[in-house]
Amino acid sequence: MDASRATGALGEDRGPAPARKRTREPEVRRAAILEAARDAFAERGFARTTIREIARRAGVTHGLVMRHFGSKERLFLAAVPSSQNLMAEVAGDPASLPARIARSYVRRMSNSGGNDPFVALIRSVASGEEAAERLLRAMQDDSLEMYRQLVPGPGLEARVSSVGAYLIGVTFSRYVVRSGPLASMSDEELVDHLVPNLRAILLG
Amino acid sequence: MDASRATGALGEDRGPAPARKRTREPEVRRAAILEAARDAFAERGFARTTIREIARRAGVTHGLVMRHFGSKERLFLAAVPSSQNLMAEVAGDPASLPARIARSYVRRMSNSGGNDPFVALIRSVASGEEAAERLLRAMQDDSLEMYRQLVPGPGLEARVSSVGAYLIGVTFSRYVVRSGPLASMSDEELVDHLVPNLRAILLG
Repeated sequence: MDASRATGALGEDRGPAPARKRTREPEVRRAAILEAARDAFAERGFARTTIREIARRAGVTHGLVMRHFGSKERLFLAAVPSSQNLMAEVAGDPASLPARIARSYVRRMSNSGGNDPFVALIRSVASGEEAAERLLRAMQDDSLEMYRQLVPGPGLEARVSSVGAYLIGVTFSRYVVRSGPLASMSDEELVDHLVPNLRAILLG
Repeated sequence: MDASRATGALGEDRGPAPARKRTREPEVRRAAILEAARDAFAERGFARTTIREIARRAGVTHGLVMRHFGSKERLFLAAVPSSQNLMAEVAGDPASLPARIARSYVRRMSNSGGNDPFVALIRSVASGEEAAERLLRAMQDDSLEMYRQLVPGPGLEARVSSVGAYLIGVTFSRYVVRSGPLASMSDEELVDHLVPNLRAILLG
């Protein structure tokens, strides 16, 4: 997306274009890099995706990607919903937290049509890619931090770890094996199925 | 293991050796093939393991393995605990079924030191091996059949599928990623952690 076209589309205020360009372009390019990264990681897995390939898809230079994100690992963590995004989605009353987790998970997987970097990450970890293992651990640490703020209590680490394991297994059944009841449920049925199980695992 | 040595070890009754050989050897060789298959599948995954390699490890001919099992898929299904074995382990009162599932799962993974064909199967499925996907589905169909007899009721397919997903996720965390609370728990702690979660998922 071109910043000058976006400004033009407003149909008014063609004001100081260079200044607009400076303020808008970094956001636009950042978003383009993140979208290219999500697509590339989902299609090719973590190990086989290069910064160069992501830059090419986003129509920017390799150097710009590095300036924005510093490394492939950081770019991946930025491309998958971070604990900050999740926090915004699931924050609120602990009693209805399982429902918000289920809806957030199902919406995210549904939006990406199962072609989510999380699926690629599970595949990469399973094939023994160490960098992918470090990433999955980083994501798990992030989500533990988030849960600590929402539902503190004894044994939280184990309960959160089990929630993660359950969602990994559901992802595996629905988006990797793609057969059986978990694969054939509609999004709404899946939410209804997940909520009581997540409640039991997370809140006991 | 040589059948004549086994007979000798009894220190008595060196009776009609050829007859003994005929009755004992098939069992002994079958067991040796299954053990070699478990090791090979666990070490090399499903796709890269050949019948020839299993025959070599078991000290038998390729033809004998084929006569006993017919195909690599059938050999795999015979090598991992089948629904028959599981049925014997978990049969009984539905109320304590979750505890028996947890103990049976933990004991089996513990006995194999995490070097279980089930872990290899998960890795193979994740890397997109179609034969491995068919195998995992066959195992899931087997276990559904087993649960149908133990805990009939509406929605059973989805509940059993979710139990399978949860155990796949736990296996993934404990034996593939090998970090976090699920990886560092002792076997007993893992059983205690799993039982209430399996009960909630399976029995509601």
